Amino acid sequence: MTQHLTGLLAVDAGGTSTRAVVLSQDGHCLGYAVAGSGNPTAVGAETAAASVAESVTGAMQRAGVASTRIRLLVLAMAGAGSTSVTAEIGRRLAGIGLDAPQVFESDLLATYLSGTDRPDGYAVIAGTGAGAIRVEAGRQVAVADALGWLLGDEGSGFWIGRRVVRAVLADLDGRGPSTALTLLMLARLGVTAPSDAGDRRPIMALVRALYDGPPVRLADYAGLAFEADGDETAERILDDAATALARTLEAVRSPSVSGPVVLGGGILGRRRQVADRLAAASGAEEVHAVADGAVGVCVLTLRHVGATVDAALFRQLRTSLTAVR
Amino acid sequence: MTQHLTGLLAVDAGGTSTRAVVLSQDGHCLGYAVAGSGNPTAVGAETAAASVAESVTGAMQRAGVASTRIRLLVLAMAGAGSTSVTAEIGRRLAGIGLDAPQVFESDLLATYLSGTDRPDGYAVIAGTGAGAIRVEAGRQVAVADALGWLLGDEGSGFWIGRRVVRAVLADLDGRGPSTALTLLMLARLGVTAPSDAGDRRPIMALVRALYDGPPVRLADYAGLAFEADGDETAERILDDAATALARTLEAVRSPSVSGPVVLGGGILGRRRQVADRLAAASGAEEVHAVADGAVGVCVLTLRHVGATVDAALFRQLRTSLTAVR
Repeated sequence: MTQHLTGLLAVDAGGTSTRAVVLSQDGHCLGYAVAGSGNPTAVGAETAAASVAESVTGAMQRAGVASTRIRLLVLAMAGAGSTSVTAEIGRRLAGIGLDAPQVFESDLLATYLSGTDRPDGYAVIAGTGAGAIRVEAGRQVAVADALGWLLGDEGSGFWIGRRVVRAVLADLDGRGPSTALTLLMLARLGVTAPSDAGDRRPIMALVRALYDGPPVRLADYAGLAFEADGDETAERILDDAATALARTLEAVRSPSVSGPVVLGGGILGRRRQVADRLAAASGAEEVHAVADGAVGVCVLTLRHVGATVDAALFRQLRTSLTAVR
Repeated sequence: MTQHLTGLLAVDAGGTSTRAVVLSQDGHCLGYAVAGSGNPTAVGAETAAASVAESVTGAMQRAGVASTRIRLLVLAMAGAGSTSVTAEIGRRLAGIGLDAPQVFESDLLATYLSGTDRPDGYAVIAGTGAGAIRVEAGRQVAVADALGWLLGDEGSGFWIGRRVVRAVLADLDGRGPSTALTLLMLARLGVTAPSDAGDRRPIMALVRALYDGPPVRLADYAGLAFEADGDETAERILDDAATALARTLEAVRSPSVSGPVVLGGGILGRRRQVADRLAAASGAEEVHAVADGAVGVCVLTLRHVGATVDAALFRQLRTSLTAVR
């Protein structure tokens, strides 16, 4: 290993996974690694900080860059404003010998900058959480929603998963219509279907299983809405999610910014169903879907060391990140 | 104090408060006391058990009956099936010298039996949580919903409060229509209204305040929907709550049981708006609203010592409970 190299660290901490990239100052990606959830609201500051440290360690190993040779670390993270989160991450990183300056950036902006090098536009993110931003001159100037699972995140993975689980329980309970989601959900949790209409054992088994984890884990069941192809209840949930996300995008719209719309997060970036409906509802001419904010946090990192990320450097970042992934 | 008396203890543990009654074997209420939330799903087993012990201590003091002279304790409590809750309550009660046998009963059945002495009928409860039951020959034979704040409780105080809070945040965020709920909510929390459309400080203040407590605390804001008289958003929330509760009642309906419908819990038992809509939707001829399940848990307690609670004994229980309250 060439331990004399210096590098920058760019970390994209999401609800499902955390991605770390070691890059050179001229924008070449040298190493990449993934760890678990890095969203402090979803899993707590301690687990989120552990995921950041694990992804960072992996990326430095792959790049062959020692922790003492890292000049700057930029983290794109939801809820990064909290000082307790910042302190916990600082402690963890000090524990692996990393004492470079740490800068926190918006995970929503990192998503936008992963999809386009245009200075003005919009991003809508729906992963475990959901929100939208307007970007002008490369800066985030307006935000809507992104208020977390309890108070907002309309159209997010949690929001869809919660609707799925409730539709299944209403079906089993006789309160709601029959839906294909029910058998999918019972199969996923290994619960036997009810023997007759009065058999509440499946309901009680689901209730026990679902209260046994943190609430945000309901996001794990969002995928069932995409699998229950053609089911009326599932279709309505995905329609409502697209409508909610369109409202969130609408709330950050400005007549002076037409720009591209970047779609990101597990619900919009890696699936077609909601993204297509949202793209149609938005009326945007240029729509880009991105799987995560890794490229964007590299862009933000390079900006912090004075680089201008033009179209050529943006393309190079994307290509060299693909090569190390 | 006449410490030689023996008595029975009836406890109605609800999401907002816990009520304990000491009664004689011939159905006279001797003492009554109230403590805080006794719902283990809402506040945890430890706090719920503490509320039970506090209300029980108060009722015994008022009745002048020593803990060693209590022959039986009957508790009506949501989620009473859990062994950890039962154990925690047993420990607490042993701590105050109470070693009488403990029997757990359905809080939904206690509500039904608070409203009528007829053997067959229905109860719909909407307090912090929500559910419906069908009663035949004085026994609970079917239940719908009552699945807790995360997975069910449609039309409950939590459900209404969550809708209120989200409507306020959507209004402030530009995602939803303007509503009178917003100023009511800001005033309640002592948060200054936004200075202009881009001022996100009120949003962030609400988010901090609301994530700072357990999720069920959103039920505290259900009352705003009743206060925002004539507001379109508030009216829609209350309409939707009534519709959800009508669906829950419908799920336990049987053609062979016409019986009365008893409405209970803070949302249905002490307010008219949702109860009137639900009563109209249900088409029931005989509807009774009750403030809590205190009378009903006394009925259940007397049953456990072999009494037959007929119309006369039921009237006497109600009268003598009113006298000690």
